[in-house]
Amino acid sequence: MKKIVLAPDSFKGTMSSITICNIMEREIIKHFPCAEIIKIPIADGGEGTVDSILEAAGGEKIHTEVSGPYFNEIDAFYGILPDNKTAVIEMAAAAGLPLVKGRENPKETTTYGVGQLILNALGRGCRKIILGLGGSSTNDGGTGMAAALGVKFFDKDGKSFIPVGGTLNNIKRIDMTKMCPEISECEITGMCDVNNPMFGIEGAAYVYAPQKGADPECVAFLDSNLEYLSGLFQEQPGKNISQIPGTGAAGALGAGIIAFLGGKLQSGIETILNTVGFDSVLENADLVFTGEGKIDGQSLRGKVVSGVAGKAQKKNIPVIAVVGDIGDNIDSIYDGGITAIMSINRVALPFEKVAARSESDLALTMDTIMRMLKLTARYRS
Amino acid sequence: MKKIVLAPDSFKGTMSSITICNIMEREIIKHFPCAEIIKIPIADGGEGTVDSILEAAGGEKIHTEVSGPYFNEIDAFYGILPDNKTAVIEMAAAAGLPLVKGRENPKETTTYGVGQLILNALGRGCRKIILGLGGSSTNDGGTGMAAALGVKFFDKDGKSFIPVGGTLNNIKRIDMTKMCPEISECEITGMCDVNNPMFGIEGAAYVYAPQKGADPECVAFLDSNLEYLSGLFQEQPGKNISQIPGTGAAGALGAGIIAFLGGKLQSGIETILNTVGFDSVLENADLVFTGEGKIDGQSLRGKVVSGVAGKAQKKNIPVIAVVGDIGDNIDSIYDGGITAIMSINRVALPFEKVAARSESDLALTMDTIMRMLKLTARYRS
Repeated sequence: MKKIVLAPDSFKGTMSSITICNIMEREIIKHFPCAEIIKIPIADGGEGTVDSILEAAGGEKIHTEVSGPYFNEIDAFYGILPDNKTAVIEMAAAAGLPLVKGRENPKETTTYGVGQLILNALGRGCRKIILGLGGSSTNDGGTGMAAALGVKFFDKDGKSFIPVGGTLNNIKRIDMTKMCPEISECEITGMCDVNNPMFGIEGAAYVYAPQKGADPECVAFLDSNLEYLSGLFQEQPGKNISQIPGTGAAGALGAGIIAFLGGKLQSGIETILNTVGFDSVLENADLVFTGEGKIDGQSLRGKVVSGVAGKAQKKNIPVIAVVGDIGDNIDSIYDGGITAIMSINRVALPFEKVAARSESDLALTMDTIMRMLKLTARYRS
Repeated sequence: MKKIVLAPDSFKGTMSSITICNIMEREIIKHFPCAEIIKIPIADGGEGTVDSILEAAGGEKIHTEVSGPYFNEIDAFYGILPDNKTAVIEMAAAAGLPLVKGRENPKETTTYGVGQLILNALGRGCRKIILGLGGSSTNDGGTGMAAALGVKFFDKDGKSFIPVGGTLNNIKRIDMTKMCPEISECEITGMCDVNNPMFGIEGAAYVYAPQKGADPECVAFLDSNLEYLSGLFQEQPGKNISQIPGTGAAGALGAGIIAFLGGKLQSGIETILNTVGFDSVLENADLVFTGEGKIDGQSLRGKVVSGVAGKAQKKNIPVIAVVGDIGDNIDSIYDGGITAIMSINRVALPFEKVAARSESDLALTMDTIMRMLKLTARYRS
């Protein structure tokens, strides 16, 4: 066992992927002290994405003041990778739900700060922008972000304003000509693992606005506003994008990335594995560990475990998934490159009780796996 | 992987050791269809002991009518092994707690039927008696068993009677001369994994009578009766045995086995592994699976897992323990010959909920283990 790659997702609610990597490494070293261990903690676009990529790929964390969800000044951050060209941004750092805790209102919140983070990165020479779309508090279709980057929105009186979720219907005209010119030189990717269209019953407002504080009446209003914005996109930036899967992500920031920035949407794990050069990392690896809080046969598409396993499978490297719960119908998972799935559960207790012991349970599970793998020397014949 | 030995305990409350063996076998065959699989389901003296030994060693199950705990007639059973010399008896088959459910009273219950089972086995030529001491409803110090085998008990008026827990103090004299003579030709072993002495605060009455229906006053009375019987043993059969560990087992039936029958007490797992010829079974084995409902560092002495692992360790054969819960402080377990410990828990749920799914959870855990062991071919270098 010479080279082992660790590429776990976080276990939601218990352990970050960085914590998981460190525990895995510690237990492996006990049994294989000479093994080379490569840690690629994974966060698929949500909270922790920047830290994870910086941990895996190296680079610098930039802190800067931007506009928060209510146009208030806040401290935010993003990452610049060692190539000095690639910026990794979590939209939630400037417009996330935790920033408006207790005063959620998707009619009034803005992605303006997200645009400011992009602007900051452009100013530092970045021309590749990776934008995590998880955890938004907004429903503004990315108009705030666009405004920060120079796009002008005019009302019926020809007055310029910065739209929010509740005022999209006041936009009469969009002027893209003042857009920050560096955007056209950029490759912009939104990390997105949902399929929701911009509006409609499966759209951004109906599916996600309730958890951002919208009551049913507000949801309907926000949805009609997004439909209105979608019409403007067709007229003005000239794009019919409203039904593209994922345009409904992050309060339709997904749509804004395509319509305003000419960007694309891509699954988080795909984006991250490409960004950290995972294919090269896998060269000569004997074994890969991945994992997530819960695995089951239904929910694999676009997820960390399947993304990691797919890459490893192409190189014929075994993958052990270490998870919290193992759900039903997992047979299909083995077809996707997973060699074995280990639950860290070791006592019959409900989640509230095992959550507190997840780190020691993970450690003991890794210890068990390594003990079993050490058996290998016996079965050579 | 040519030969695999399965030697699990039952998982108390969910699966018998036979069920566990069958599930393990099925999952192993999926991955190693040509492996020779030897199933040694283990029950360490309690319920299921006879069936387990017959399953492992072959032999015949004998059904016969005997006296139940209240001198009522009941159907009971025991096993005769293929040597036609060895009988395996569960004391609970004739005097167990389930037989008196709802009318528990250790002052009145008898082990008479246990003696009758021994007598039946002697009549069929058996000269080696293995007696499981788990699950008794009695507190009679084995006097009932002795009476069935011909021992006479006389009260102060010189009248012969069969003592029970509440009348031991009426014994004035014990006459061993009428004991069935075949007993002296027999090797008699009580399977016993507790250390309790015959009487006193750690004795049979204080520790076990409450679960047999005794209130505190009754417990004290039963205890004084056992102390009285212990005095008689010193005078008459001439044995001071009351402090021997295990004499307090099964309502002091442990004491009766020594005092009346000249038998010995031995750990259940030791007895069973010897009886089924486990050392021979292990020859050329590549791997042993054992397991139990819960494993922890404190409770290993005399238990199935440690007994199996100890034998395998001497032959340098790896042992994987598959268990329900894994408790704390398990490091010492690895010193005792266990290679790895796998919990079958795969979802964070309380025991009430996982109990119902234990068979499928065990199957999936075995499947995972075999998938991991198949990795072995990769790591030869």
